[in-house]
Amino acid sequence: MIVRPQQHWLRMIFVWHGSVLPKIFTRLLLNFLLSIAVIIMLPWYTSLGIKLTVAPFSILGVAIAIFLGFRNNACYARYVEARQLWGQLMIASRSLFREVKNTLPDDPHLGEFVRLQIAFAHCLRMTLRRQPQVNQLAHYLTEAQLRETMDSGSPANRILLIMGEWLATRRREGHLSDILFHSLNNRLNDMSVVLAGCERIANTPVPFAYTLILHRTVYLFCIMLPFALVVDLHYMTPFISVLISYTFISLDALAEELEEPFGVENNDLPLDAICNAIEIDLLQMNDEKVLPPRILPDKYYQLT
Amino acid sequence: MIVRPQQHWLRMIFVWHGSVLPKIFTRLLLNFLLSIAVIIMLPWYTSLGIKLTVAPFSILGVAIAIFLGFRNNACYARYVEARQLWGQLMIASRSLFREVKNTLPDDPHLGEFVRLQIAFAHCLRMTLRRQPQVNQLAHYLTEAQLRETMDSGSPANRILLIMGEWLATRRREGHLSDILFHSLNNRLNDMSVVLAGCERIANTPVPFAYTLILHRTVYLFCIMLPFALVVDLHYMTPFISVLISYTFISLDALAEELEEPFGVENNDLPLDAICNAIEIDLLQMNDEKVLPPRILPDKYYQLT
Amino acid sequence: MIVRPQQHWLRMIFVWHGSVLPKIFTRLLLNFLLSIAVIIMLPWYTSLGIKLTVAPFSILGVAIAIFLGFRNNACYARYVEARQLWGQLMIASRSLFREVKNTLPDDPHLGEFVRLQIAFAHCLRMTLRRQPQVNQLAHYLTEAQLRETMDSGSPANRILLIMGEWLATRRREGHLSDILFHSLNNRLNDMSVVLAGCERIANTPVPFAYTLILHRTVYLFCIMLPFALVVDLHYMTPFISVLISYTFISLDALAEELEEPFGVENNDLPLDAICNAIEIDLLQMNDEKVLPPRILPDKYYQLT
Amino acid sequence: MIVRPQQHWLRMIFVWHGSVLPKIFTRLLLNFLLSIAVIIMLPWYTSLGIKLTVAPFSILGVAIAIFLGFRNNACYARYVEARQLWGQLMIASRSLFREVKNTLPDDPHLGEFVRLQIAFAHCLRMTLRRQPQVNQLAHYLTEAQLRETMDSGSPANRILLIMGEWLATRRREGHLSDILFHSLNNRLNDMSVVLAGCERIANTPVPFAYTLILHRTVYLFCIMLPFALVVDLHYMTPFISVLISYTFISLDALAEELEEPFGVENNDLPLDAICNAIEIDLLQMNDEKVLPPRILPDKYYQLT
Amino acid sequence: MIVRPQQHWLRMIFVWHGSVLPKIFTRLLLNFLLSIAVIIMLPWYTSLGIKLTVAPFSILGVAIAIFLGFRNNACYARYVEARQLWGQLMIASRSLFREVKNTLPDDPHLGEFVRLQIAFAHCLRMTLRRQPQVNQLAHYLTEAQLRETMDSGSPANRILLIMGEWLATRRREGHLSDILFHSLNNRLNDMSVVLAGCERIANTPVPFAYTLILHRTVYLFCIMLPFALVVDLHYMTPFISVLISYTFISLDALAEELEEPFGVENNDLPLDAICNAIEIDLLQMNDEKVLPPRILPDKYYQLT
Repeated sequence: MIVRPQQHWLRMIFVWHGSVLPKIFTRLLLNFLLSIAVIIMLPWYTSLGIKLTVAPFSILGVAIAIFLGFRNNACYARYVEARQLWGQLMIASRSLFREVKNTLPDDPHLGEFVRLQIAFAHCLRMTLRRQPQVNQLAHYLTEAQLRETMDSGSPANRILLIMGEWLATRRREGHLSDILFHSLNNRLNDMSVVLAGCERIANTPVPFAYTLILHRTVYLFCIMLPFALVVDLHYMTPFISVLISYTFISLDALAEELEEPFGVENNDLPLDAICNAIEIDLLQMNDEKVLPPRILPDKYYQLT
Repeated sequence: MIVRPQQHWLRMIFVWHGSVLPKIFTRLLLNFLLSIAVIIMLPWYTSLGIKLTVAPFSILGVAIAIFLGFRNNACYARYVEARQLWGQLMIASRSLFREVKNTLPDDPHLGEFVRLQIAFAHCLRMTLRRQPQVNQLAHYLTEAQLRETMDSGSPANRILLIMGEWLATRRREGHLSDILFHSLNNRLNDMSVVLAGCERIANTPVPFAYTLILHRTVYLFCIMLPFALVVDLHYMTPFISVLISYTFISLDALAEELEEPFGVENNDLPLDAICNAIEIDLLQMNDEKVLPPRILPDKYYQLT
Repeated sequence: MIVRPQQHWLRMIFVWHGSVLPKIFTRLLLNFLLSIAVIIMLPWYTSLGIKLTVAPFSILGVAIAIFLGFRNNACYARYVEARQLWGQLMIASRSLFREVKNTLPDDPHLGEFVRLQIAFAHCLRMTLRRQPQVNQLAHYLTEAQLRETMDSGSPANRILLIMGEWLATRRREGHLSDILFHSLNNRLNDMSVVLAGCERIANTPVPFAYTLILHRTVYLFCIMLPFALVVDLHYMTPFISVLISYTFISLDALAEELEEPFGVENNDLPLDAICNAIEIDLLQMNDEKVLPPRILPDKYYQLT
Repeated sequence: MIVRPQQHWLRMIFVWHGSVLPKIFTRLLLNFLLSIAVIIMLPWYTSLGIKLTVAPFSILGVAIAIFLGFRNNACYARYVEARQLWGQLMIASRSLFREVKNTLPDDPHLGEFVRLQIAFAHCLRMTLRRQPQVNQLAHYLTEAQLRETMDSGSPANRILLIMGEWLATRRREGHLSDILFHSLNNRLNDMSVVLAGCERIANTPVPFAYTLILHRTVYLFCIMLPFALVVDLHYMTPFISVLISYTFISLDALAEELEEPFGVENNDLPLDAICNAIEIDLLQMNDEKVLPPRILPDKYYQLT
Repeated sequence: MIVRPQQHWLRMIFVWHGSVLPKIFTRLLLNFLLSIAVIIMLPWYTSLGIKLTVAPFSILGVAIAIFLGFRNNACYARYVEARQLWGQLMIASRSLFREVKNTLPDDPHLGEFVRLQIAFAHCLRMTLRRQPQVNQLAHYLTEAQLRETMDSGSPANRILLIMGEWLATRRREGHLSDILFHSLNNRLNDMSVVLAGCERIANTPVPFAYTLILHRTVYLFCIMLPFALVVDLHYMTPFISVLISYTFISLDALAEELEEPFGVENNDLPLDAICNAIEIDLLQMNDEKVLPPRILPDKYYQLT
């Protein structure tokens, strides 16, 4: 994620890093070159009776803009929901540990429970990003817990099960009444909601045909646009054609980034930083003194 | 569902499988042939005083695009809601079994309960797809349970009732306090929410007139479009006409697929894979070793 | 509600029953006749210096399409919410009876409670459709209950109160602990949510001025449209004018139907069928053998 | 609120009362007069080299229509949310009293509690409409309660506190177990949600700049429109200019009404009628015989 | 936040303070000057064969308006959600203290608890606005509490933990049953939801590329617009160009303000006033007599 401080409106026009421009530069360049070719070849193909006008492109442009707007909305909704789920994880993590600490203030294994919670957050992050997990999780789990977790097809869900057992043991030993166990268990359910919600977003893309139809119409539109513009604009064709193409193609490309919010691209969620914040928060709530350093944006204002 | 990995933007234009193109190819071909006929007959019907211009089609095109956008949104919302309901089933299934296992760790019939949960997911899937259920459910239910289930008009709801009885028996025998029974029962209610939500989506389509009006205006628009374009574009008419028709007709066709998310078409939900994931997850939580194989996409990236 | 199976795209264009076409046919015919009159009188009023062009209608058409789209969205949202509320009634009804049956398996009056639940659904339906209720409710309620219900200004709410008393009696007699009473009472609250939600939709229309402004602009637009089109299109004016009018007027008329989802028009909710499904479901859960016949669509695919 | 029964489409065009027409009539008249002035002065200012064309107004018109549509949506969302909050008050009021009556059937002070509930609804209504409250509330509250309520900066919140004390007294006296007190207290929390939700809507308008920008662009657009239309339409300018202005200005004016749903204008919520319905409902639930008369729409179909 | 009372529509056009006009005045002036330069240089660059027409700008204008509308929607949604979160804080604060006061009416430390609640609201506000907190919080917290809070990386979360300990102490001492502790603890969880929700909005902007693409296309559009308008409008170019630019740039600038609702700009949330209202409410509920003065809008109708 790019967390750039507010900037002067004029400088915004020239920003390169963090826009989708690097990604679509080739396509815009091709559009520019095509426009020049169209200007040069105009007399030749006009003599063949081929001509295009702007009017039908106006119909097409509006339709594509409307559909692109709806798709962008759908992709942005995925991004927002993903961020909300991680916000809920923050909420559930804090609430769960606050309840545990308030109701079991003298339990000697609070540190173990805090580490289970931290492990859950890291495990979810690494599952979503398909990263290897053993080394990281080994910091937080006992050997038995680690083995049990890595043997499971859903490691994060296994950690929840272990946390449930931790609490159930206290209940059986009489340290937790049924009602307080029920309350703490609801926090685990909240984490389960986050887990399955993230899995859903990661595994179910926006319907493929939706993406495909818009890609196709956007590119065909941009390819044919110079032919329509050249009659009226002549030498100005490349500039206007690239400007219109930029508007459509950049939003199409951005929608693609937002659709998968758990990646590590410029406009994806900073899961590393969120996990880091959860870890520091929980350790501080347990009054521990050794904390990991806080993750900050790099010099490109990038937070992963 | 098509789960195609990201592709080069240029190749996207030529994808055939998984787009709605195969379904609407005939209609686009007819549009192409009509355009050619219009070019040929232009002198004849102009001599009759018949002429069309692009301007009124611009009004119509924008209006149809807006309404089509709203309908697509409505259909996509059904798809998203259907997916969320199945995500909630995953959540409720895991949470229910985690609570059962944590609070009744020594119950000798946990395996029976896990199978009831798995049967519920499969039963819901097969009800929504109107598939025969006896053979599949026989793997998970006892004979008495199976008979009771198949005798009911709402088999999935009957399985919930059986699960409730399973828990109520433990309560009456004193293994579950009222508060824990209440908590577990809430998970059954969550499953009831999923069940009725899916039934609602399956039984209540988007209002028929909505679908009808848009179908009709889209097709009449595409049929009359060549007559309006030909005056300006002449030989280019078929290409532009097909491009505009493609934009409108493909989105209309996609909306139709998304409207019924429980089918087995390209853009429908992969219920088989979701049920498979629920089954593996629950069996692993019960520490069982014999698991069904995980369902993966076929060579067309298709997941059913 | 029309539940028509999927059809060939070409046949869709000619469907009559279930579209809003019968309702707006007169208006479209008037538009057609007006267009012909405009063609005939064109020389006369042009000589008076009166002329219209398409350009301002383009501005107007887009604006009306956008506003109509938003209003359609608002009306469709009411339809969807109404359907969701009835889905929640299905959920609450099943969950309530499952909990009652699981926790009071030996109660000799379960049949009475089931009938109270069924009476609630029918009572809500008939209240929303302003139908007389005594005869129908007499099938499910005792004489005392019926009198109490019909004396109330909110009969459905009274039935909830009676159900609450039924449960409270069991609590006072010691068959239900406070926690289970609390749980069952929450299901009654869910039904109360459905009741008040439906009353809200039925009693609070979309703001009248919203409906009025769009009606007025749509009709004035359609009336003046032929005058603008005739200059360019001449003999084709009636066809294009009717096509554009159809797009706008049909969506306006559909919005009107969706706005009141509890009626008995083509695009309204099939409350009879939903109540029938709830009744069969609950009776089957109580293992009763005498069930009412299931309501199916009539030959016009109509479900009331 | 206007609750006009469905009408013939033709009569809708001429409705005066209940539309926003009376409010914006002056502005439309000014637009009409300006258009006539523009026709008269056309030769003079054309000779100065001043001319306008429709094309840039087309860009502007579409942009304003889109932004106006979004603002209308935002204002309508406030109206809908406000109505939902009052629906929730209805739900919470009925559920609270049903629970109280079922669990404390023999309490001699049920009538006092019902009156506290009714007082809450009226107090909320009068707070939102900034009306004096003492006389009305004196019907429902004891003298001590009234004094305590009127001394508070948030009278409705104070009534909630008194209701909480009423319940807490029963708990301390042993008539309510903790779990039932907890359940009833949750209904008070639901009322607290309604209270703060209504305060939020009443105190936080749509951002002022949003309203301002749209007002300004709508009016500047309508003022300059006749200059652009006159070249093409000449004598028809006033009619088309007023029609377009009506579309934009009426929706702008309606949005303004919907933005403040608690007022007493034509399109505001009928809070008097809702409070009246709550009062009758609660008194009937308590089996009281003396009920206030039901509020019905006046001859203009107006319900306040 | 500007809370300006309703005004005459005509005066609205000339409002300066509270609109975004002061912020974008330079940009509009530059657009005006550019337009004049374009008029002057028209003959020169036309002779070079450079010309632009309005038609492609129509396509671009519609597309930008649609995308800008969606972005405005997204930013406004953040503003609305932020306001709702603060509304929920009001709800949770009142409900929590009502429950505490009703269940622990004789506790001698109620004043301490009220101050913890007030400190939470102020602490959240100052965290979101990155203001120094020690002096303000010292009014409400004991020295030990203050030290603990300021030592934490998440001060507001630490205050929640202290409140939890306050309640847990009462539970351990036998003044609160588990069920009432559970209920009160849920209110703390509600506050945790508000806290993490606000942190999410403050730390996760709308994706930077979204903002960037729209900025860039809006400004490039406005820069090139005069070149396209000048051919048709000549001397009127500056006025129309500035009007169109105003529509687009002002909405772009407003979206930027709404995106960060916790700032102190004209269209940001009045957090000072909300905290003040919470403080007065809670103190009055505790029957205290010394209240802080109520914060009112300043002479510019500005509420911070």
